[in-house]
Amino acid sequence: MAYKPYSGFEPKWITKAAAPDSYRSIFRWGDPDFFKLPKESLYNMMKDRLNVKDEDFRDYAMDLGFDKVELGPEYAPKMAQEHVDFFKSVYGDDWSQGDYDRMSVMYGQTCYDLLRLREKKFDSLPDIVLYPSESEQIVKTVAYCAEHKIPLYVYGGGSSVTRGVEPVKGGVSLDMRRKFNKVLYFNEVDQTITVQAGLSGPDYEKHLNNAVEEFGAKRAYTCGHFPQSFEYSSVGGWVVTRGSGQNSTYYGCAKDLVVSQKYATPRGEIVTSHYPREATGPNLNEIMMGGEGTFGVLTEVTLRFYRYMPENRHRFSYMFKNWNDAMEAAREMMQRECGFSSVFRLSDEEETNMMLRLYNVDDTPLRPMLEKLGYRDMERCLFLGFTEGEKGYSWNVYYNILKIALKHGAIPLTGYVCKSWEHGRFNDPYLRDTIMDFGICVDTLECCVNWSNMEKVHREVRKVCHAHPNSVITTHMSHCYPQGANLYFIFLTPIHESDAFHEYLQDILDAIVRSGAALSHHHGIGKMFAPWLEGNIGETEYGIFKLLKEYFDPDYTMNPGGTIGLDLAEDEKRFTRDGYDGYRDGYNTPAWDAVIAYDEKDEFLETLK
Amino acid sequence: MAYKPYSGFEPKWITKAAAPDSYRSIFRWGDPDFFKLPKESLYNMMKDRLNVKDEDFRDYAMDLGFDKVELGPEYAPKMAQEHVDFFKSVYGDDWSQGDYDRMSVMYGQTCYDLLRLREKKFDSLPDIVLYPSESEQIVKTVAYCAEHKIPLYVYGGGSSVTRGVEPVKGGVSLDMRRKFNKVLYFNEVDQTITVQAGLSGPDYEKHLNNAVEEFGAKRAYTCGHFPQSFEYSSVGGWVVTRGSGQNSTYYGCAKDLVVSQKYATPRGEIVTSHYPREATGPNLNEIMMGGEGTFGVLTEVTLRFYRYMPENRHRFSYMFKNWNDAMEAAREMMQRECGFSSVFRLSDEEETNMMLRLYNVDDTPLRPMLEKLGYRDMERCLFLGFTEGEKGYSWNVYYNILKIALKHGAIPLTGYVCKSWEHGRFNDPYLRDTIMDFGICVDTLECCVNWSNMEKVHREVRKVCHAHPNSVITTHMSHCYPQGANLYFIFLTPIHESDAFHEYLQDILDAIVRSGAALSHHHGIGKMFAPWLEGNIGETEYGIFKLLKEYFDPDYTMNPGGTIGLDLAEDEKRFTRDGYDGYRDGYNTPAWDAVIAYDEKDEFLETLK
Repeated sequence: MAYKPYSGFEPKWITKAAAPDSYRSIFRWGDPDFFKLPKESLYNMMKDRLNVKDEDFRDYAMDLGFDKVELGPEYAPKMAQEHVDFFKSVYGDDWSQGDYDRMSVMYGQTCYDLLRLREKKFDSLPDIVLYPSESEQIVKTVAYCAEHKIPLYVYGGGSSVTRGVEPVKGGVSLDMRRKFNKVLYFNEVDQTITVQAGLSGPDYEKHLNNAVEEFGAKRAYTCGHFPQSFEYSSVGGWVVTRGSGQNSTYYGCAKDLVVSQKYATPRGEIVTSHYPREATGPNLNEIMMGGEGTFGVLTEVTLRFYRYMPENRHRFSYMFKNWNDAMEAAREMMQRECGFSSVFRLSDEEETNMMLRLYNVDDTPLRPMLEKLGYRDMERCLFLGFTEGEKGYSWNVYYNILKIALKHGAIPLTGYVCKSWEHGRFNDPYLRDTIMDFGICVDTLECCVNWSNMEKVHREVRKVCHAHPNSVITTHMSHCYPQGANLYFIFLTPIHESDAFHEYLQDILDAIVRSGAALSHHHGIGKMFAPWLEGNIGETEYGIFKLLKEYFDPDYTMNPGGTIGLDLAEDEKRFTRDGYDGYRDGYNTPAWDAVIAYDEKDEFLETLK
Repeated sequence: MAYKPYSGFEPKWITKAAAPDSYRSIFRWGDPDFFKLPKESLYNMMKDRLNVKDEDFRDYAMDLGFDKVELGPEYAPKMAQEHVDFFKSVYGDDWSQGDYDRMSVMYGQTCYDLLRLREKKFDSLPDIVLYPSESEQIVKTVAYCAEHKIPLYVYGGGSSVTRGVEPVKGGVSLDMRRKFNKVLYFNEVDQTITVQAGLSGPDYEKHLNNAVEEFGAKRAYTCGHFPQSFEYSSVGGWVVTRGSGQNSTYYGCAKDLVVSQKYATPRGEIVTSHYPREATGPNLNEIMMGGEGTFGVLTEVTLRFYRYMPENRHRFSYMFKNWNDAMEAAREMMQRECGFSSVFRLSDEEETNMMLRLYNVDDTPLRPMLEKLGYRDMERCLFLGFTEGEKGYSWNVYYNILKIALKHGAIPLTGYVCKSWEHGRFNDPYLRDTIMDFGICVDTLECCVNWSNMEKVHREVRKVCHAHPNSVITTHMSHCYPQGANLYFIFLTPIHESDAFHEYLQDILDAIVRSGAALSHHHGIGKMFAPWLEGNIGETEYGIFKLLKEYFDPDYTMNPGGTIGLDLAEDEKRFTRDGYDGYRDGYNTPAWDAVIAYDEKDEFLETLK
């Protein structure tokens, strides 16, 4: 989509590349020469809904960060020289104590991080950054840090939105991006590949796409894992946080893709086994995933891959009359046993409104046509996606989705909308950077919900968000299953300070947990969501995480400072089950009207007569 | 299939029901009035291959156990009266210290168990048997046993083949069969159901099949889990051992069906969460499954269920020319991304020979026809199964299997053979009892293998088995995945003593583990396979199991005596990695020729030119 100048006032959007030594180069997403600007209808929506005026876009509300990173002496590394010497002996020239290098691994990508960088708040500088190229270096580093009680952090792709990578206690940060990115084994018979954990998403996918040339394989393959952060995510990050890609409804989440993992922990190396299924006690792969660097450092990972068959892809998009119809249809698609589509994305009324602005549909004749047919603005819900797999499989899923959508009152919109979405799917973070210059924050939260509780979670979370003045909250359902789905919330609000943003986020997280959803479907916990975790999991249950921590890392040197809540003080915890009626009553959340207790079934059957 | 009298000598097969108070009623499988006798061609095969003669079938080689169970005073319960009084206070009349009741929960269903019963070796009598009907009773029992250090065992369906249920240290056995079998919640929106762990397979399936009448549901459902032991298995047993059903290639294993679990442990109740996916630290469902009763007692479990659509089922059977062609075809079926068949069962040459005898095909014109077409006896491999799911999905899988089979040189045999297999699928254990009267043991072992290591595991295990005189070992592949499959071994051999059988088994287990397979795909570990577990998993990795044990049950009162190896002495361990070259080298077993180390890829590509 080419950018079209506005009809009226147009803000001075910044389209100047930041210098590679600037703050801006750190907090801005990805490619310094790529920019994404809001279309006029989106700009107008922000003015309508966020109580901002053209006036507010005359000048920048935030520090633009074009200046060079330079730290005063108060931020000098505090590490003893003997430790630095040790790391030199292991890493040769692959280390740095420079200001820029240390700052570039300080934060991830939540607005809280970006705001702090714009505020020049340097909460969490590591004392040294190391660039491993071999697992053996990491093994030595972990052992040394454990012995000398030096905090150790890992920076994978840096796209964490949970403060997962933040070295809050200083010490060492392993920056995996530079050199820890090799393919170690390729096994076409088993369709598995072993890679170093720092390999980036796009490089990983390229190896698989080019398997014929690179490995003499019989065909091309795909990884099947495409999170929105794809371009700046790392394979290791996918795994340790239990991430999901946008195509996960067909390909599965990271946990479904992992075959085997190797970790360097203070207790020694841990290698999980590589069989498709085992009945040999608790599952070690599932114990290590989700550790988020608190048990040790993931060094190598073996993943399954899939055949690359884009020729079998069928794109679809539909408009439903309302969220309830759409939810019912989505559930039927998941429970019909006709196979699963790859991308499966259903927007609620508020997101649909925004999507139509974002993806150009708002200017087309489609808009009045939809209104005329009874698909009304702020009621209608957009559903899009595509199917993959073998030809007949892909077609069968596409055909069943069509049948179910029509039966639930949807109107087909052709594949155009889906293509628009695909076009922008990985570059929305650039748009976020653009509007943040004017003090408008965009961020996301997500959670996993069972079908029978979905309406409630959707309602409660939106209610809390709308109770804040000047907030837009859009929701989509994605990553779907026969038993439920992920709800993904995107919120826009004018906030200029990191602390205010943090409070805003807390309210929404409270709502998510109290409405009976899982705290996270695929972003992980990190340090930001940690205060809610024990309450979400249960105290005795959470004790198992602490136990594992004590086993692997008794001195708390691995990603310390609150990650997954392991070293949080009691008063830092935010959510407990006390006073919360009926939490998981009968394994379920209180609103599960759909649940029939078996001993009340006769009574229930009576009501049906 | 009606039974046809033999042309020559016919053994005096026993077809008399055993009295309900007899030893035979305990060691014989299932229905006392049902009998399964070998067809003549199978009888002839045993004579050919096991070095037994008609002579050996003139009289019984083993104790038939028709006598009444009566224990001498040396086997009297040893439990202090105060404990008995406590259990009475919790269970009312639902307890027993009777000889028969205690003996009926002593062993499971491995030949080692059956032989010991025929030998009247009473190794493991509990002091009291309790019949819980409510979770609350189990919670109290667990707490009491932990406090007073009384060993606590659980007897679910009793079909364990790993000595998993055996109360080797006496104490309490919870017999779940009688009263712990209720449905607690039925949730049609989420397609989940919560049941007490003692519910039997057939009762569970009946509830789901009758969901319309029982729960006012919109349609009928199926559990999708049908192990060979289905009729005498319990839902809880499926879960704690990580079991699989014969239809798992489509429906998934127990671990894929579990939504949530509730355990009574000495540390307190553990409730796992119920979301389809979560990124909230290590996965608790996957930690609890596989505990096999050593962490606590599974009381309630929520499972997902599926739509019951037998009208969409397509049966198939094919004959391949040899195991290698068949394996290649099977792998292609799993990796094509066309969907998965429900039953997927591929027999090797030796099993095919036996199957054709068992399923009547041997007497038909098919046999000479196959020979003529080049599908030779002891080379050809039988492949059968059926597809399920939505109509188009089921058809697409069926159609792709057809295409792939033909491409790999298979000949279609119509659905007849599959129907014969279905007819006998749950009653083969009766046949085992019949021939055991004459001293012939039939038992099974199974393991999980990646595709690239499958030929090796198949070869090595058969080699070891054939090295024993008078052994038949048949193999099939079932429970298949894109990355590998389960190999299932059935062996027949004349053995009259439990100790000799145990030694025989050990040799095969050694071969399984040394050839690089997982120790178990779905039977679990119990007490019988425990000596191999730590070596199979790794020492630091296995330490995690011990850690979990210490957390839940620090006094080792839950299923003590070696279950999953937790309280094994060092000298009881059988397999260590010492001296075993290349074990899991680069995550892989040494024989993985298919693996290309990336740094040798140029050299490899050269060889392709």
